[in-house]
Amino acid sequence: MAILVTGGLGYIGSHTVVELLNNGYEVVIIDDLSNSEKFILKNIEEITGKKPVFYPFDLKRRELLTQVFDAHQIEGCINFAAYKAVGESQEKPVDYYENNLFSLIHILQEFKTRNISNFIFSSSCTVYGQADQMPIDENTPLKTPESVYGKTKQMGEEILKDFANAHKRKISLLRYFNPIGAHPSAKLGELPIGVPSNLVPYVMQTAAGIREKLNIWGNDYDTEDGTPIRDYIYVVDIAKAHVAALKKLMNDPSGEAVIDIYNLGTGKGSSVLDVVKAFEAANHVEVPYQICERREGDITVAYANADKAEKELGWRSETSLEEALRTVWEWQKYLDTKNH
Amino acid sequence: MAILVTGGLGYIGSHTVVELLNNGYEVVIIDDLSNSEKFILKNIEEITGKKPVFYPFDLKRRELLTQVFDAHQIEGCINFAAYKAVGESQEKPVDYYENNLFSLIHILQEFKTRNISNFIFSSSCTVYGQADQMPIDENTPLKTPESVYGKTKQMGEEILKDFANAHKRKISLLRYFNPIGAHPSAKLGELPIGVPSNLVPYVMQTAAGIREKLNIWGNDYDTEDGTPIRDYIYVVDIAKAHVAALKKLMNDPSGEAVIDIYNLGTGKGSSVLDVVKAFEAANHVEVPYQICERREGDITVAYANADKAEKELGWRSETSLEEALRTVWEWQKYLDTKNH
Repeated sequence: MAILVTGGLGYIGSHTVVELLNNGYEVVIIDDLSNSEKFILKNIEEITGKKPVFYPFDLKRRELLTQVFDAHQIEGCINFAAYKAVGESQEKPVDYYENNLFSLIHILQEFKTRNISNFIFSSSCTVYGQADQMPIDENTPLKTPESVYGKTKQMGEEILKDFANAHKRKISLLRYFNPIGAHPSAKLGELPIGVPSNLVPYVMQTAAGIREKLNIWGNDYDTEDGTPIRDYIYVVDIAKAHVAALKKLMNDPSGEAVIDIYNLGTGKGSSVLDVVKAFEAANHVEVPYQICERREGDITVAYANADKAEKELGWRSETSLEEALRTVWEWQKYLDTKNH
Repeated sequence: MAILVTGGLGYIGSHTVVELLNNGYEVVIIDDLSNSEKFILKNIEEITGKKPVFYPFDLKRRELLTQVFDAHQIEGCINFAAYKAVGESQEKPVDYYENNLFSLIHILQEFKTRNISNFIFSSSCTVYGQADQMPIDENTPLKTPESVYGKTKQMGEEILKDFANAHKRKISLLRYFNPIGAHPSAKLGELPIGVPSNLVPYVMQTAAGIREKLNIWGNDYDTEDGTPIRDYIYVVDIAKAHVAALKKLMNDPSGEAVIDIYNLGTGKGSSVLDVVKAFEAANHVEVPYQICERREGDITVAYANADKAEKELGWRSETSLEEALRTVWEWQKYLDTKNH
């Protein structure tokens, strides 16, 4: 019996594969390498001493997916495979809808036919849109997300809920806040492909001299230091939440539909300047920055109430912002070694 | 130059093909015959004296769709192809999402690559959910629809809006209220496949003796006669609205994104009992009925404000309920002849 992890060589995917292997699960990875590299697989093997099965293909290729389900006894899926660049999603909406929805629906068709339950979906706090209240808990009303990326996540949640209800299957929708950091081994992390669009990879590259200056998009927001506030959560903590969510689903004997929804955040907001200062303090480096005009679509504050995950999964974020940022710098050094 | 009509042998599709042909358009039909029959094509040819091109395949087969776009100069599309049974959509959500979204996205990929504009989408008043105000105009806030069918329509609208904005294309979202009736020639109409789930086909079959009694699902609603009120609109009027919407898009020279949204209704609400009585009066037949328990998910009242379509398209519904119901009875007689 194995767990299928789609996008298992991606940023959060690879960290989750490590936690699954360390918890004794057999893992089958499908990843088309569109946003990862083959060495991540080797590093997963080095970290865990175990070999996940790996298939390199695009989930839109339904016939190949069917072959994987024929070849393995899949008893659950964690679905990371998705395009995730917010800005790009506005320019290429059809590609985003196609990639993110087709891959999900193809897997659900296999689940339906083969009577498989236990599906964990990578969702995002973007499904809340610009929430009216802080912190955001799981009962905060959803709004239409600002981006096509966010809409694919909201639609994915809706499709999964209908699937669970119609066929009495068990699903867990995990709404990530802002994942950061790298594996303590420094062998897994967020791969910088092109110019980073997230804060922490940009900070990392600026500290490393790859970027001249960090652009801070506005310091006139209604926050203490004027920069927007987010809930940055360590990627290994997020990975562990997936294992906890999976165990809960697999241990549920009811035979009824289960629809779990959890915010994965720390419960604590940090401003952009907080992150810059914490990075500098943690790693004894300087991060030169400049204040720019506000960027369209950025909201002021978003942080989680993550009590539900603690109560129902026995999980909570355990890693401080500084600790997480220390792993980022180790990861950058590792990438430097690889490139020289 | 041709107009692609997907689902062009279906109920509303076939009536629209007739109007397009009568207005001088070349028409290419793709229809997998999952909810129609081949004789409809012959009847379209008899009515119009023209031959549309017809391809019988499922739009999920992307490579066949590409061949159609290679073979014809498509300058616009009216997309009727979709599963549409509300009850079934709750039982088979994955099939509904797959069929309704994949077909749309496949066409948009061809539009994107080939730089084609002018897309008309069959939407539905279900995107308004249980509206708080009557009549429903195009600014009435959308709600999450009650059914998977409705959600596929709402998602389709969202995908099309993002497509239009990203690539400066022209789209029209036509939100149908309750289409009824058959072609005046009695050669096109709603094909009764299985037990009808819509009111008028059920009334028709009851009058014809195929069903013993019409079930009226509740007469304790807060309306004058206690039965729910809907906006029944004649299918040929709806078909004409498509031609008007297409002309408007094709005549827009701006080069900018155009996102037209129109309610297609009469603006007048009729109760279930109104329809039964009008059918009896129009056709001098009896429709025996019985009052049953309310059915889950039925709302009390829904009718359109269709002024926007009149103002911008010069279109309005011209056919009375009685006239429309007379065509239904002629269609039933035609089906009887065919079956004997």
